[in-house]
Amino acid sequence: MKIDKRPLKILSTGSYLPKRVVTAAEVDDRLGLARGKSEQMTGISERRYVTDETASQMGAFALMSALEKSGVRYENLDAIICASGSAEQAIPGTAALIQKALNRPDVPIPCFDVNSTCLSFVTAFDLASSLIATGRFGTIAIVSTEIASVGLNPAQHEAYALFGDGAAAAIVTRPAPGEGSGVIHAHMKTFSEGAGYCRIEGGGTRVHPKTEQPDSEKFLFCMDGRKVFRLVLETIPGFFDEAMNEAGLGLDDIALVVPHQASGNGMELVRRKLGIAQEKYMDILSKHGNMIAASIPLALHHAVEEGRIRRGDKVLLLGTSAGMSLGMVIFEY
Amino acid sequence: MKIDKRPLKILSTGSYLPKRVVTAAEVDDRLGLARGKSEQMTGISERRYVTDETASQMGAFALMSALEKSGVRYENLDAIICASGSAEQAIPGTAALIQKALNRPDVPIPCFDVNSTCLSFVTAFDLASSLIATGRFGTIAIVSTEIASVGLNPAQHEAYALFGDGAAAAIVTRPAPGEGSGVIHAHMKTFSEGAGYCRIEGGGTRVHPKTEQPDSEKFLFCMDGRKVFRLVLETIPGFFDEAMNEAGLGLDDIALVVPHQASGNGMELVRRKLGIAQEKYMDILSKHGNMIAASIPLALHHAVEEGRIRRGDKVLLLGTSAGMSLGMVIFEY
Repeated sequence: MKIDKRPLKILSTGSYLPKRVVTAAEVDDRLGLARGKSEQMTGISERRYVTDETASQMGAFALMSALEKSGVRYENLDAIICASGSAEQAIPGTAALIQKALNRPDVPIPCFDVNSTCLSFVTAFDLASSLIATGRFGTIAIVSTEIASVGLNPAQHEAYALFGDGAAAAIVTRPAPGEGSGVIHAHMKTFSEGAGYCRIEGGGTRVHPKTEQPDSEKFLFCMDGRKVFRLVLETIPGFFDEAMNEAGLGLDDIALVVPHQASGNGMELVRRKLGIAQEKYMDILSKHGNMIAASIPLALHHAVEEGRIRRGDKVLLLGTSAGMSLGMVIFEY
Repeated sequence: MKIDKRPLKILSTGSYLPKRVVTAAEVDDRLGLARGKSEQMTGISERRYVTDETASQMGAFALMSALEKSGVRYENLDAIICASGSAEQAIPGTAALIQKALNRPDVPIPCFDVNSTCLSFVTAFDLASSLIATGRFGTIAIVSTEIASVGLNPAQHEAYALFGDGAAAAIVTRPAPGEGSGVIHAHMKTFSEGAGYCRIEGGGTRVHPKTEQPDSEKFLFCMDGRKVFRLVLETIPGFFDEAMNEAGLGLDDIALVVPHQASGNGMELVRRKLGIAQEKYMDILSKHGNMIAASIPLALHHAVEEGRIRRGDKVLLLGTSAGMSLGMVIFEY
């Protein structure tokens, strides 16, 4: 068993959910489906949509909620990493906007964004463990804040019914001497043959509003669910085995798997394919939908709050993302 | 003198410039200015604009150009980090699109994006040194690829005249035993009171084409140059002194400063304020303009190609970015 941990302790987690609850029935009505159909397709009974909330405000609330429980003072944060698949503006990045929403101009905490779409939190968590190991930063706020609802296309029933908005955050730091918290293994692969399977083509430099019809579907999320499934199911068993072998661990060593809350079918297929027991598989999909990169930290937040993980437990974050990427981190909580 | 280096060796650098050269005279004509005016305002005699190139294609060319010189085979890259202030699409991130443009579906190299606007390369370089130090990744391609031209507003003369398009890349790895290459010190601060001074409000989740007029200025770059100058000049001397003190170094120890190519006036004001000798200050602005995050790695690429830095030299990357952030890295080349 090879364990070469990078020190990282989750001091606390927090979340913010938009006020507005959108039920499966409301989605059915919006899409002209029979009542019950969208929940049957996706496994999602409700999710939140923003009304007046912005991504940076949600991120700021989630950060503060986590910070209050951490015992760390805001001015002692060494970095704010926004780990999100959607951005609030083209320029600047969302981390700086979160700092601005926190309204503490006296504390110029370094802010930057990390983006690997739905895996952004996992990537930032992985990066944070190296940053803490080398002493580059002591205590880091990782914030995932996502507004999916603005980009949903009612012509794409399944994708429309999948997503929700919200934010989650974690405060991570160097563990005290003798504490075992840390990242045991991290693993990622990007299969860009699937880069077009989940996409919003507009919003960047290639498809600009000034040269594209504003009602163009290119500004909306487009997903080829069948191709996503096929690519994930083809690649994830080898990916997972390789990572577990490199970590020198088996599923018996893992107290809880926190997967990306991609969709009911997707989560179930991955769970069965990898042989993960249902009771070790964190599932908050039904009440939140797929919240892009905020799904994994929100599920982790629920796991912590519900006492499903304890200090010393080995926890596995596992996700898929547009790109398409597979990513996982095994850490001792 | 405190030196606690994080190992990182730049094996090679590369660049890609769009085919189309846009002269100062062309910019003058476009803006209805007298010939010579835009160059006088900005110090820029020409820059490139994309015609058919995409950000991911430019990034792929820059990566391959660097890779050829590195002696590293593509399949031995452990990660591709896209470090850019602009994105090609809203989803997925540009790193995955660069991998796709390289058309090697047999090699699923992990891809993710890092964004701190114009400082993105500096942030990614800093991160890479921790990732290499901990062994998380061995060899990393950092790619900055920017298309500024699509978002320029002809009503904003100075900002319009400043920017150019292009890409630059660096291949970084763990130095061999006995080699001194590494990051000596990294320093960053984000002053979000200035988050609105340089901005494109649209393109993210807050201002969406479906609810905003497509010709809205919100989809274009907007800069309050006077406020940027004031904030940078107020904060950069203290920032710089703090970083140099923490590094235990003085300007005499630095062989070359590679600043963000923000603007002629901006670069000159910063140079004088910090007392950096002209001959130690890398300046490629006149032929390229401000290429957002690609400016610093392109200037570094020129410094390497022109023999202005040699192995063992201490080099300082220094930048400002929308957010507003100040960032610097001191490394031994």
